[in-house]
Amino acid sequence: MIEAWRTAIAKLTDGEMRVRGYDVLDLMAQRTFTDHVALLFKGQLPSLDERALLDAVLIGMAAPGPGAPSCAAARLAASGNRASLSAAVAAGILTIGDEHGGAGSNCMELIVEGLAMVARDGITIDDAAARLVDRERAAGRRLPGFGHRVHTNDPRTPVLFEMARQRGLAGDGVRFTEAVERALAARVRPLTTNIDGALAALLHDLGYPPPAGRLIFIIGRVAGIAADVAEEHEREKPMRIRVPVVYDGEPPRSL
Amino acid sequence: MIEAWRTAIAKLTDGEMRVRGYDVLDLMAQRTFTDHVALLFKGQLPSLDERALLDAVLIGMAAPGPGAPSCAAARLAASGNRASLSAAVAAGILTIGDEHGGAGSNCMELIVEGLAMVARDGITIDDAAARLVDRERAAGRRLPGFGHRVHTNDPRTPVLFEMARQRGLAGDGVRFTEAVERALAARVRPLTTNIDGALAALLHDLGYPPPAGRLIFIIGRVAGIAADVAEEHEREKPMRIRVPVVYDGEPPRSL
Amino acid sequence: MIEAWRTAIAKLTDGEMRVRGYDVLDLMAQRTFTDHVALLFKGQLPSLDERALLDAVLIGMAAPGPGAPSCAAARLAASGNRASLSAAVAAGILTIGDEHGGAGSNCMELIVEGLAMVARDGITIDDAAARLVDRERAAGRRLPGFGHRVHTNDPRTPVLFEMARQRGLAGDGVRFTEAVERALAARVRPLTTNIDGALAALLHDLGYPPPAGRLIFIIGRVAGIAADVAEEHEREKPMRIRVPVVYDGEPPRSL
Amino acid sequence: MIEAWRTAIAKLTDGEMRVRGYDVLDLMAQRTFTDHVALLFKGQLPSLDERALLDAVLIGMAAPGPGAPSCAAARLAASGNRASLSAAVAAGILTIGDEHGGAGSNCMELIVEGLAMVARDGITIDDAAARLVDRERAAGRRLPGFGHRVHTNDPRTPVLFEMARQRGLAGDGVRFTEAVERALAARVRPLTTNIDGALAALLHDLGYPPPAGRLIFIIGRVAGIAADVAEEHEREKPMRIRVPVVYDGEPPRSL
Repeated sequence: MIEAWRTAIAKLTDGEMRVRGYDVLDLMAQRTFTDHVALLFKGQLPSLDERALLDAVLIGMAAPGPGAPSCAAARLAASGNRASLSAAVAAGILTIGDEHGGAGSNCMELIVEGLAMVARDGITIDDAAARLVDRERAAGRRLPGFGHRVHTNDPRTPVLFEMARQRGLAGDGVRFTEAVERALAARVRPLTTNIDGALAALLHDLGYPPPAGRLIFIIGRVAGIAADVAEEHEREKPMRIRVPVVYDGEPPRSL
Repeated sequence: MIEAWRTAIAKLTDGEMRVRGYDVLDLMAQRTFTDHVALLFKGQLPSLDERALLDAVLIGMAAPGPGAPSCAAARLAASGNRASLSAAVAAGILTIGDEHGGAGSNCMELIVEGLAMVARDGITIDDAAARLVDRERAAGRRLPGFGHRVHTNDPRTPVLFEMARQRGLAGDGVRFTEAVERALAARVRPLTTNIDGALAALLHDLGYPPPAGRLIFIIGRVAGIAADVAEEHEREKPMRIRVPVVYDGEPPRSL
Repeated sequence: MIEAWRTAIAKLTDGEMRVRGYDVLDLMAQRTFTDHVALLFKGQLPSLDERALLDAVLIGMAAPGPGAPSCAAARLAASGNRASLSAAVAAGILTIGDEHGGAGSNCMELIVEGLAMVARDGITIDDAAARLVDRERAAGRRLPGFGHRVHTNDPRTPVLFEMARQRGLAGDGVRFTEAVERALAARVRPLTTNIDGALAALLHDLGYPPPAGRLIFIIGRVAGIAADVAEEHEREKPMRIRVPVVYDGEPPRSL
Repeated sequence: MIEAWRTAIAKLTDGEMRVRGYDVLDLMAQRTFTDHVALLFKGQLPSLDERALLDAVLIGMAAPGPGAPSCAAARLAASGNRASLSAAVAAGILTIGDEHGGAGSNCMELIVEGLAMVARDGITIDDAAARLVDRERAAGRRLPGFGHRVHTNDPRTPVLFEMARQRGLAGDGVRFTEAVERALAARVRPLTTNIDGALAALLHDLGYPPPAGRLIFIIGRVAGIAADVAEEHEREKPMRIRVPVVYDGEPPRSL
C-alpha cells in the first residue's frame, strides 16, 4: 500500500467539490476559465484587471504558428494515429522546451536574477540588465525573450505592455525587460522584447514563479494545437505528410 | 521539397497576425481566452451567453481529480523527469481516452445518432433514447455520460443545465440526455447525467462536433494537470512515488 | 492507501531479480535482448529459430523511414525541446496508430478472424480470405498489411517468409496472408503483402496476440526513432525546421 | 516548400533499403536486433563480444521495475486510454529523465569529464575521481550511478563488469567508476556502482557518447514498459487505478 498523496489544490469528494477552498459550482456559475487558471496556480482569484491581462497573454500564446514545431508535430501524430486525439495534442506539447516556447520561463528566471542583483548589490535596474547582457553574450548565449525569427518587432508586446500600464499592473518585470532592451541596443544591436519576453515580464509582475510561466504558455498553446488537430482530422487524409529526405551517409557496403 | 500545408485557422506573418480573420491584437485587447477557444474551433466569436456557458464547462473539466489517471500520470512524470514540464503535462494528457475523459465526445456521438433517428424515422426523442439504451445494454456497453464512480449525482450537471436554460441555450442535446436518463430509470436503474454527459449535451447545443468535445475537454483538463505538475515540483522530492507490487507469476526456474 | 498492483512479469526485490521466473543475472549472461523481448511478452524463451525470426522482424521495423511521421515528429520535438530526449522519442511513438505502423496488429486481427471462420464454418483458407476481402472492399476499407505507398513489392516480405519456411515456423498466418494476396489479385488488383502484413503473419505464427503485434512494432521502431533523435542533436541546430503554410480561411474582418 | 532533411542513417527508396550502407535484407537474414541498435547509433556493426555486452545491458534495463514511475505511468495511460497502445508506451517513456533512468547518461558525462582531467592535468584516475566526488558533494549533489533506493548492492553490476573483463572490453570507463567507488568509500560512505553506473561505464568503453546512453536506456526500458501495457490490457479492467489523496489546502471559503 502507498501513502496518500497530498494536495492543496482541490478537494473533490462525493458531495463536496472545492478548488482552493471555493465551491466549484460557484466558480462555474460566476467566474471565467481564465480566473480558474489563475486560481489553480496562485491560490487566489484575480482582479478584473489581472483577468484581462491574463486573457491577453493566453490569447497571444494560443495563436497556432505556421511552421511552429508544436503544430507540425501534432498534425503528424493526428495523421498517423487518428484514433487518439490526446496522443496528437501530447505530441504537439512535447516539442515545447527551452528552444520552442520556453523563452518565457527562462526570461522569468533572468528577471528574478536581475532584480535580486538590484536588491542585493544596490545597483540600478539598468546596471543589472547590462551585467546580465554582458555575461550571457560572453557565454555565447542569446537573451531569452528578445528578438524573433519571424517578427522584426513583435506587435503583441506593446499591446500587452500598454494594457499592463493602463491597468496599473506593470511593475519591475516590465521595467527590467525594457532595461534589457536598452542594454542590448547599446551593446549588441537593437533587439526588442518578443511575445515570450512580454509574457515573462507580465507573469512576473502578476506574481507567478518561472515554472508557472512555462505551464501557462502550455495552457494557452494547447488551444492552438487542439484546433490544428481538429482541422487535420476534418480536412486532410491520413498519412498525407511526407518529409523529403536526402541521404548523405555511408555508400553501399556488404556485410 | 514538400508542398505547403494549408490552414484556415490562422495567418501569422511578419506584419499581420490574424486568427479566423480577426486581428490577434484586437482579440488580445478586447476578448477573453474562452472566446478565443470558441473562435479557434468554430470560426466565430461566441455571444456573452455562449461565453458564460463555455467558461462553466471548462471550469468543470479543469478540476484536478483525486486519483484521476491524468493527474497521477503527470505527477509520476514530474517526479522522474523534472527537467521537462511539457513531458509531465503530456503524460497526463495521454491517459485521456474512451475510458477517462472520453465519455463526453462519445456521448456527443450518441446524441448525434439519436437525433438523426428522430429526424429520419419520425419518432420521439424518448423513443430514440429508449432504442439506443436497449441496443447499448444488449451489447453489454455502458451509456457514456451517465453515472459516475465517485458522485452519485454529479452536482455540476444541474448547474450547467440551469445556466443553459436561463440563457436560452438548452436545445436538443439537453433534451436528449434527459430522455436517456428517463429511459435508463425505466429500463435499468436510475443513472443521472454526469459532467461528461452534461458537457456533451451543451457542446452539441453550442454547435460543436464530437471530436471537438474531446479536445475542449483536454483544454480544460490541461489547466488542472498543469497545476498538479507545478505543485509536485514545489512541494515534493523527485522519485517519491513507489507503487506497491505483488508478483503472482511463474515460480523461480532455471535457464 | 491503494492496494498493491499485481504483475506476473517480474519480481524485483533487494536480493532477487527475476523475470517470468528466470534470474535476470542469468538472462544477462546467457541470452539476447530479443530473447528477453519474447520472454516478457510470451512468458517463455524462444528457440534459436524463433529468435532469428524475431530478430529479422525487429530489424525490419527499426529502419527509420524517410518521411515517416514517427521520425519527423521525433525530430521536431528534438528540435524544440532539446533538454528531454525521452520527450522526443515519445513524440515519435505517438504518431503510431492505425494509419502508421498499426497495419500489423490490424492484420493480425484479420488473420485471427479469418482462421476462426475456417474452423467454425469448415471452409478453406482461400474461401475465408475471399470473404474478408469482399467484406472489407464493400465497406470501403483497405486490407491492412497489403500494398505500400513507397515499395511496389516490399522486398522484406519474401526474406521473412523464406526464413520462416526454412526454419519450420511458417504456419496458418503465412498461409492466410498468401490467400489474401490471391483473393486481392483475383478480385481487386495485385497487392502484395507488405512488411506490416509479414510481421502480422509471423507474429501470429509465433503465438503472439494482436495487441502484442503493435507493441513489438513499437519496440523495433523505437530504435530507429532514437537514432534519428541522436542525429538531430548531433548534426542540426535547434528550431531549424519550418513547415511552409498557406492560409485559405476567412479574409480579414473586424471585431 | 521546405528543404529536404538530411540523414546519414538510412536510405530507403523503392528498390533499395540500406542502413548505414548495409542492405536491410542482409541485416535481417544475418544479424541480430542488438547488432542493429549498435549499427544505428555507431555506424558500424559490433563484434560478437560487443554484441553480448550490449545484450546484457539492454536486458538489465528492460526489467520492469515494481513501482518504477515508467511502468506505473504507462499502466495509468493504458487504463484510461485503451484505444492507443502507443499513448500508453509514450506516457511511460515520459517519466524518464534525470531522476529516473537518467543517471546512466549523467554518469557518462562525469566519466568523460573525469578522464579529460586525467588527460589534461596529468593526474591519476583516483585523483580525478576524488576531485569530482568532492566537488559534487560540496554542491550538495549525489553522484549519478552510485547507490540505489532498493538494492544495497546492485547484483547486475558485477555481472556486467565481469563480462566486460572476460571479453576484453573493460576500459577507462569501468576503471573510473571503480575509482569513484573508492573515493566515495573513503570520503562519504560505501556506495557501490548501480546498474545505471554500470551501463555508463560499459557504454563509454564501447564508444557511445552520453546522449546515446540515455537513448539506449530508453530502447531497453521500452520492452519492459510494453510488456506492462500488454499485461494491463489482458488482466485488468479500465480505470481500476485510484490514487488516494489527502487535501491540505485552504479551508472552505465563499466567492
